[in-house]
Amino acid sequence: MERDLIKKIASFPRAGNDSSVVRGIGDDCAMVKTGHGKLMALTTDILVEKIHFDLAYFSAYHLGWKTAACNLSDMAAVGARPRWALLNLAVPPGLPQKFWESFSRGLFSCLDEWEVSVVGGDTVSSPAHLTTGLTMAGEVHADQWLGRDGARPGDLVFCSGYLGESACGLALLREEMSGKRLGRRRKTWWKRLTGRHLMPRPRVGLGMALARTGLATSCIDISDGLATDLTHVCEASGVKATVRAGAIPRSRALKTASRELGIDSLRLAVSGGEDFELLWTADPGHGRKILEIATGLGVNAFCIGHISNGSGVWLKGIHGMEEISFQGFEHRA
Amino acid sequence: MERDLIKKIASFPRAGNDSSVVRGIGDDCAMVKTGHGKLMALTTDILVEKIHFDLAYFSAYHLGWKTAACNLSDMAAVGARPRWALLNLAVPPGLPQKFWESFSRGLFSCLDEWEVSVVGGDTVSSPAHLTTGLTMAGEVHADQWLGRDGARPGDLVFCSGYLGESACGLALLREEMSGKRLGRRRKTWWKRLTGRHLMPRPRVGLGMALARTGLATSCIDISDGLATDLTHVCEASGVKATVRAGAIPRSRALKTASRELGIDSLRLAVSGGEDFELLWTADPGHGRKILEIATGLGVNAFCIGHISNGSGVWLKGIHGMEEISFQGFEHRA
Repeated sequence: MERDLIKKIASFPRAGNDSSVVRGIGDDCAMVKTGHGKLMALTTDILVEKIHFDLAYFSAYHLGWKTAACNLSDMAAVGARPRWALLNLAVPPGLPQKFWESFSRGLFSCLDEWEVSVVGGDTVSSPAHLTTGLTMAGEVHADQWLGRDGARPGDLVFCSGYLGESACGLALLREEMSGKRLGRRRKTWWKRLTGRHLMPRPRVGLGMALARTGLATSCIDISDGLATDLTHVCEASGVKATVRAGAIPRSRALKTASRELGIDSLRLAVSGGEDFELLWTADPGHGRKILEIATGLGVNAFCIGHISNGSGVWLKGIHGMEEISFQGFEHRA
Repeated sequence: MERDLIKKIASFPRAGNDSSVVRGIGDDCAMVKTGHGKLMALTTDILVEKIHFDLAYFSAYHLGWKTAACNLSDMAAVGARPRWALLNLAVPPGLPQKFWESFSRGLFSCLDEWEVSVVGGDTVSSPAHLTTGLTMAGEVHADQWLGRDGARPGDLVFCSGYLGESACGLALLREEMSGKRLGRRRKTWWKRLTGRHLMPRPRVGLGMALARTGLATSCIDISDGLATDLTHVCEASGVKATVRAGAIPRSRALKTASRELGIDSLRLAVSGGEDFELLWTADPGHGRKILEIATGLGVNAFCIGHISNGSGVWLKGIHGMEEISFQGFEHRA
């Protein structure tokens, strides 16, 4: 479901000819003109208990952190500087004061890194489940922001970080919930992978650098999985992407854990969501400069494929080509 | 609960010294500097099924309308021009396509009046209850906005519209839900009062006029009831308010219906929430001009009391003075 209903609702009654809206529904952020060559980026995300998180394995601190991280990653995707946030909470009975202290510490630990201020919000009672929502506003120069629609044939495809780790971490947490193999907790890879699910690090600095330098032709954050998010870029840009299976960055931790779990690590890296890494395209001539910029920011970046005429997202492996369009992660409902 | 938890969360970990934040948590809107003498007003509201509305008496159209109206009324309170909105939905299983068509018509009927564009949002599954949330951004000149904290001793207290009607409409709808006295539906007062609950008309034009002319010293919208919202103004301004019972505008419809319901109409007008009228203070010398401006916009406005040194909100009736601070409406949880 995700964004489709909003799109449908917005399309029902009218044409929507507002010249102040540079980018509306469907991108990571809406972009609106605030005058004097500046755009405001606006984004909102909701996390629902039992759908997006389970308090059996999410601490209040991690929930606060992740509530902030989702919005920040959308800001990173368009290259905006995050500024202000509004916090919405629908609160079921029975959560103690300590829960909110811990939630706040997590929320602000993540927001403070980018000097984002919580300026308002709304708190309401919820009959049963906890729901958190954050809306964020950021700023960017009108000629220095990143969209999904600028990928061109000949461009290379890049991503930051190692993929599939958040999904693998989630699988580990769910196994643990069911009481299996608790001994793993002490392993380094267990900590790394579950940490990637509970405390993802949005690539705000990298997004701002890609926007400022103008080196990327398109950008998106990987929230629904490489396969689905790259499909969004290809659809918006009217192009085809080919990803080399061997080039997709998979960590040793991912490989070890996925062996233990009996899951294909390539499948996790291609389809697993919520890594909150960035995925972007750029002219091959800028490839080296881009990798330098990422390194300078302490972020690993990889060239994983290329753009050509056509449509869809294709995975090139040892057994040939396979279409993987939209084969990403969906939150179970 | 309402805004208290957000305030607590924001105060937990840090001082929050962001010079771009002109007004943070606690006012109707947050006000942030976007440069070149402009402020952006930001507000967000959530409506939860079974807490804020019941689909037994709220049609999808009315729910859409009211989702927009709550935000617009916050914009009115600070005198901002509403511009952009983000829509959040947590959707339980089983609502048909027709529901969303009707919801959209209601939402956009209300938003279109002020040319507000829906630029984004997030839709998630909900295990049980429908929740709607809207976040709105508006614009106002940095030296032309209204806060709650400017009321001064000597000022008069004004309100727009007739009070208590929304609360009375809600009481009628609840009686109807329980199957009582369905014959009332054809009465003019029934339509007027239930309409005020289901389709409140935010006073955006009046708020913008009060801000532009600089005639009001403080302003708030009446969402939690006259008694509570006037207490907010008095606390923020460090003053006392005295309201004359006989001056509080009560319509004939309210008086007729409250007789039928066996509720005191004055109590409804003092404590009933969700009228989404404006409540403001101004120098007595500007009283006449203000009433003219309201009339010019087709809005009834009334002088209902005055501000003095001291604290609290007092009701002056035929039996003397009674303190009514915070005696407003609370959503049942």
